[in-house]
Amino acid sequence: MQAIVKTGAHPGVEIREVPVPSYGPSEVLVKVESASVCGTDVHIYDWDPWAEGRLRPPLIPGHEFCGTVAKVGEDVTTVRPGDFVSAEMHVACGKCLQCRIGQAHVCQNVRIIGVDSNGAFANYVVIPESNIWKLDPALPREYASILDPLGNAVHSVLAGEIAARSVAVVGCGPIGLFAIAVARACGASAVYALEVNEHRRDLAHAMHADFVLDPAREDVAAEIVKTTGGIGVDVMLEMSGHPDGMRLGFEILRTGGRVSLLGIPAEPVEIDFARDIIFKGATVVGINGRKMYETWFQMEALLRSGKLDLLPVITHRLPMAEFAHGMDLLKSGEASKIILTPLD
Amino acid sequence: MQAIVKTGAHPGVEIREVPVPSYGPSEVLVKVESASVCGTDVHIYDWDPWAEGRLRPPLIPGHEFCGTVAKVGEDVTTVRPGDFVSAEMHVACGKCLQCRIGQAHVCQNVRIIGVDSNGAFANYVVIPESNIWKLDPALPREYASILDPLGNAVHSVLAGEIAARSVAVVGCGPIGLFAIAVARACGASAVYALEVNEHRRDLAHAMHADFVLDPAREDVAAEIVKTTGGIGVDVMLEMSGHPDGMRLGFEILRTGGRVSLLGIPAEPVEIDFARDIIFKGATVVGINGRKMYETWFQMEALLRSGKLDLLPVITHRLPMAEFAHGMDLLKSGEASKIILTPLD
Amino acid sequence: MQAIVKTGAHPGVEIREVPVPSYGPSEVLVKVESASVCGTDVHIYDWDPWAEGRLRPPLIPGHEFCGTVAKVGEDVTTVRPGDFVSAEMHVACGKCLQCRIGQAHVCQNVRIIGVDSNGAFANYVVIPESNIWKLDPALPREYASILDPLGNAVHSVLAGEIAARSVAVVGCGPIGLFAIAVARACGASAVYALEVNEHRRDLAHAMHADFVLDPAREDVAAEIVKTTGGIGVDVMLEMSGHPDGMRLGFEILRTGGRVSLLGIPAEPVEIDFARDIIFKGATVVGINGRKMYETWFQMEALLRSGKLDLLPVITHRLPMAEFAHGMDLLKSGEASKIILTPLD
Amino acid sequence: MQAIVKTGAHPGVEIREVPVPSYGPSEVLVKVESASVCGTDVHIYDWDPWAEGRLRPPLIPGHEFCGTVAKVGEDVTTVRPGDFVSAEMHVACGKCLQCRIGQAHVCQNVRIIGVDSNGAFANYVVIPESNIWKLDPALPREYASILDPLGNAVHSVLAGEIAARSVAVVGCGPIGLFAIAVARACGASAVYALEVNEHRRDLAHAMHADFVLDPAREDVAAEIVKTTGGIGVDVMLEMSGHPDGMRLGFEILRTGGRVSLLGIPAEPVEIDFARDIIFKGATVVGINGRKMYETWFQMEALLRSGKLDLLPVITHRLPMAEFAHGMDLLKSGEASKIILTPLD
Repeated sequence: MQAIVKTGAHPGVEIREVPVPSYGPSEVLVKVESASVCGTDVHIYDWDPWAEGRLRPPLIPGHEFCGTVAKVGEDVTTVRPGDFVSAEMHVACGKCLQCRIGQAHVCQNVRIIGVDSNGAFANYVVIPESNIWKLDPALPREYASILDPLGNAVHSVLAGEIAARSVAVVGCGPIGLFAIAVARACGASAVYALEVNEHRRDLAHAMHADFVLDPAREDVAAEIVKTTGGIGVDVMLEMSGHPDGMRLGFEILRTGGRVSLLGIPAEPVEIDFARDIIFKGATVVGINGRKMYETWFQMEALLRSGKLDLLPVITHRLPMAEFAHGMDLLKSGEASKIILTPLD
Repeated sequence: MQAIVKTGAHPGVEIREVPVPSYGPSEVLVKVESASVCGTDVHIYDWDPWAEGRLRPPLIPGHEFCGTVAKVGEDVTTVRPGDFVSAEMHVACGKCLQCRIGQAHVCQNVRIIGVDSNGAFANYVVIPESNIWKLDPALPREYASILDPLGNAVHSVLAGEIAARSVAVVGCGPIGLFAIAVARACGASAVYALEVNEHRRDLAHAMHADFVLDPAREDVAAEIVKTTGGIGVDVMLEMSGHPDGMRLGFEILRTGGRVSLLGIPAEPVEIDFARDIIFKGATVVGINGRKMYETWFQMEALLRSGKLDLLPVITHRLPMAEFAHGMDLLKSGEASKIILTPLD
Repeated sequence: MQAIVKTGAHPGVEIREVPVPSYGPSEVLVKVESASVCGTDVHIYDWDPWAEGRLRPPLIPGHEFCGTVAKVGEDVTTVRPGDFVSAEMHVACGKCLQCRIGQAHVCQNVRIIGVDSNGAFANYVVIPESNIWKLDPALPREYASILDPLGNAVHSVLAGEIAARSVAVVGCGPIGLFAIAVARACGASAVYALEVNEHRRDLAHAMHADFVLDPAREDVAAEIVKTTGGIGVDVMLEMSGHPDGMRLGFEILRTGGRVSLLGIPAEPVEIDFARDIIFKGATVVGINGRKMYETWFQMEALLRSGKLDLLPVITHRLPMAEFAHGMDLLKSGEASKIILTPLD
Repeated sequence: MQAIVKTGAHPGVEIREVPVPSYGPSEVLVKVESASVCGTDVHIYDWDPWAEGRLRPPLIPGHEFCGTVAKVGEDVTTVRPGDFVSAEMHVACGKCLQCRIGQAHVCQNVRIIGVDSNGAFANYVVIPESNIWKLDPALPREYASILDPLGNAVHSVLAGEIAARSVAVVGCGPIGLFAIAVARACGASAVYALEVNEHRRDLAHAMHADFVLDPAREDVAAEIVKTTGGIGVDVMLEMSGHPDGMRLGFEILRTGGRVSLLGIPAEPVEIDFARDIIFKGATVVGINGRKMYETWFQMEALLRSGKLDLLPVITHRLPMAEFAHGMDLLKSGEASKIILTPLD
């Protein structure tokens, strides 16, 4: 089969002919129909220090996809060839404390398909049955391939109460944009989108954020104070990972509010804990991945009920062979979610 | 002023000229602009055993209303004449255990305006400042007068998780109909409305319930099993108070689901606790009134964001002088929420 | 090996020589060191209608035990021969909705070892690796064999807040007695034990309940009203399954309180839902089994820290060969927990 | 009466003869029987920048006390002369969003008696009836005067699950020491006390912490990794406010754990949010004051049930006239809680 391969410890990838992977008795071989690109893939492509420390090439990246079951191992009972599926790519160990008390999303021995083993930027990918998510064939292929980041957004939004609450989304990359849609679908009373990149602000408008603000040019705190009756937002979803975004996010949070932190800051960040968390009586939740598998049920229910219009986030469709061009688009800041069609 | 008065321990009411009530230093005199009728008012009108045991005539009933502040006591600081307001009519003592730990909605010494003291079916009503709810003047008068029952619905829906959950509303009186709208606005993935009365089923359709079922003629349990993939509904909101409704509601609840009980059964009810609650690992919450004042903030936020279309529930508008006709309409089953315009 | 066998569809059991069971690649063969008897075993022994409907003889009962790992299947990684273990005997499917969202204790396809397949009243029992619970070898054997019912108690007590709360335990069978110890260890401010059987009341005293009351002879409600300042108990743990116990339990619950229902009523029960749940704003949780595996971690932590003195509950030790005598003791009401030493 | 008075914008206090304060219709005049000293009082005594920015001398400080009701205003109904009382010294406005949704402990308009108006270091203090906490006369006077900081500890410990959880208390000032007692009483399975001051470590031992560690001389993280089976602590209570303490606290927290932040850092603190909160999926709660009044009921229940031995924390008893000596003791690090007997 054809695959995008990180061939060694250096930037770039190659398209190569590789064998179709073999699968074990509890595993499923999926023919990839659609995949999408995550910021993590850019780190892998660029071979940054994180990639250097984590990856062991050669490796096929890719952890957002959908496809059709081609073959199943002999112990597999819940799917069969022809089923339309996606997958949770965090493979939890099932044996650590966290796995056994319902926190498998922070498993101590997690392995990520597409990072720690071969992923979905190929004609076929192998997934353990436990991680397969069977989909309604009526679900649009493009939505089916972005469930991983949509799950991040659903996990962030639903990590506390959201109905009838005002919410600020700080940072409008794909997950932030998804979070706008999810918050609105789940009854948020007002959604503020904060973003310095103009293209992303346009997308935030397209996602129907109630207020779209540019922290680089507007006094965002003053605007939020004014429009919330001097109170601040009930909920802050930090999706920028930028120190300024984090500090601004805490500043606009109301006393007694709650925060989901999802954006990954590259370095330690200095925060005024006394003013921003302690005296505020705030609740702050770290968000990692998606809950296995409560978030998946929630996603499926929201998608099935037609409450989520995600199309504006998908800015580009490319053949997988143009992967390098996709990398350029993402780094230019002009793309949000890029859907890849498979290699032939 | 003119008022509807329960003059003695017998059925019926009279329209009488009575003095405008006096108000204390912490109280607010409100000119009533719009009021609405509750099932409780029918009990009072008919002088049923509950009314006999609770009321001390003469009394002006009426506990759903909105109006304009006419006068305020000397210690009142949060509203002033001209403000558009409604009110929480459960006056909590503020001193019992429940009041002091955030459960004022089940205050041990509650007094209900319109039941235990003179209410809003009059030109003026007196409300303690603590219970006044100041409204955006842009809110439609008709919505402003139904916040009490809307609050019951919001409290019921938001007593547990609702986003991305399927929900059955058992009994489609006004609160059940409101609950359909609230559940949809807060991200319920599918709303089943169960109701034996045809007129109410029509209203459930108008509220955009996804499934409207008649337990008297359809195999509701089979239908729900089929459409939920054999699982049952995640959430059941019991709003009928009828033993058959309660039993059906528990039957269709999925294992591990949650229940809000709001409808008041007239008698003890026999339930199969082993099958329906214990083996199911269900969570059942009794709903009384509205949370003071979290529910009010939630209602306001949902209304302000335009997420609730409640108009179909308001089936009739009558001059308050036609109160007796309103009683007939309600008892006929052909009315849902009746809005009364004030006596002149 | 020797085993206690339900040989057919009739009362009684036989001690028989049977083959040591074979085990699969993911299974563990455990040499039983100690077992204990549950009320369920009495139902099986007596062959009541529930047993008639559920069991398929021949069957070895027994689902409370501890022992030493004898052999492990080739895929087993978390235990090895010689390890001291107990086990969760509810084998969840891992594939239903409930299993996948953290509610495996109410799995829709559960199989119970000792009920649906051969259990621990034998020299050896086979357990899936997923269900094995490895124990500190320092844990007393007698405690190690009663983790199943202790887990019911822990699940019941910790299904809501317990610290600084008054709690009533209604029904003082073994699980009720364990619940007294767990509630005290977790900071309950006062524990009321309600029980009609004198022997069990003596045991409740031995477990250091603060108040031990006999509903058959005392005005329990009046006593609780008096000693709680007129408020009622914050938490009610229903462990009798008796209609009178349930009704009394709801009566003594304070407004805004919470209930765990664990005792299994044999028939539907009539409850005054309006007074006891709805107007009270009560929260009622059905308790089934133990959370997999959060409850097990909690048990282990409480036992390891020495906070639980469970010895009074263990009223009898018998050789397994005297099983029938154990049945008689349990039915007489004079035994609480009976520990069985293995057949030779 | 005699009082300790901050006479002007400079360090130190004076003992002065001042008039007994007058009280309004909803206020209570309390004769102080016992008071205690808080770190805040040291800031006021030393006239540090915080004090400079907040206080308006002349002012009588003191916000931890107990006493006997001397007089009550005409509208007071819940206490009468002779009652033994303490008080919540945060006077909430009752009208802001936070007050109305059960978050009065973070009221936007709070006034603190002893900081913003005259406090309890005097023969008499005036308290609004709403803030009076009536005590059982059997409660030891010394405990009765330290309910304010005990409440901080109870709020911190009970801001999430504690039963059967391991917990680290970072910083063993009085509130940290109280937290050890509260965590143990509420079922914590192991309590780690981390403290660099030797005297405070001795007190942590006296409070029966399971492990007392000195971060300045021991590899605390290694010790906790070892004794928790490589997992870390389930709960971290940050009570030092020191950047090193905070960073160490987050380091030893297990993945999926929870944190209460109570210690007030003087400056912004740099934290590795990615490693310590986001990837850990941690929940962090800012703790301010005590919940009004749920925490007070919890404290009372724990004290009444005899579960808290707080005596070791009370290291000194002084006549109030020796206030300056008390300040020296506190600053030396050799005192924990100092109880003051009133001026005569």
